[in-house]
Amino acid sequence: MTPLPLSRPTFETDLSAGQRLARGAARLLRSHDFLALEEVPLKGGLRADLLALGPGGEIWIVECKSCRADFRADRKWQGYLEHCDRFFWAVDPDFPAAILPEDSGLILADAWGGEILRMAPETPLAAARRKALTREVARLAMARLMALRDPAV
Amino acid sequence: MTPLPLSRPTFETDLSAGQRLARGAARLLRSHDFLALEEVPLKGGLRADLLALGPGGEIWIVECKSCRADFRADRKWQGYLEHCDRFFWAVDPDFPAAILPEDSGLILADAWGGEILRMAPETPLAAARRKALTREVARLAMARLMALRDPAV
Repeated sequence: MTPLPLSRPTFETDLSAGQRLARGAARLLRSHDFLALEEVPLKGGLRADLLALGPGGEIWIVECKSCRADFRADRKWQGYLEHCDRFFWAVDPDFPAAILPEDSGLILADAWGGEILRMAPETPLAAARRKALTREVARLAMARLMALRDPAV
Repeated sequence: MTPLPLSRPTFETDLSAGQRLARGAARLLRSHDFLALEEVPLKGGLRADLLALGPGGEIWIVECKSCRADFRADRKWQGYLEHCDRFFWAVDPDFPAAILPEDSGLILADAWGGEILRMAPETPLAAARRKALTREVARLAMARLMALRDPAV
């Protein structure tokens, strides 16, 4: 019905280092037919930088780390594992990737795109959790879309 | 991360009669904690004016009819029933509501809001269909949001 409203494109210079990584990683995910949503709150007070939903209902989480300190400060990343089938770090080419845990996925990204350097191991979600998470993600995306389309709500 | 981009508000005068109903009905649904997505393609070539997802995963479909001819031209509305738990018509106060099937829900709406005049009967979706539809709606909302946020994709 309503054509989507015009939106202000987000330019590279408006973005923080983490946001540039998230944009590039989201484009990469899209090229694998995974749709990504930014800043997704999870049970337990965590917030995923990117949560992506694949064509078969697969749920991947990507945490974007712009520098060593950013990674060192994150003491709760293992909490993400129970909310996804696969977990990835997204870092830029200058990041010291050797400090990242080897048993998680690795995406090399910049503001324009990325590639999967190391596929994350798969630890499939329980059906009930996948169902609840898919529903929450759907409602969150719908709420954000509605807020853009109809600012009165 | 990225603040949502500014979007052009959609003014009443930009909207067709059907779009005004859809906006008001979406606001009403929101007040019931149902998030709505417009123009949702369904299996079988149908396209729902509004598909709403409730807090418990309930799926409602709302078809907006701006006039008698608009309703008369719709020969396939029963096809929507297999894609939702409850089905509603949304019409404005001048619509001859008596011509609508009595065994479906009725929402009275304008561009600014609405109310449920008659609750639709519930015919719960099969679990597999609910799961697939929830996933499709999530991916559609995420794709539309991403297209607004990052027009390069």
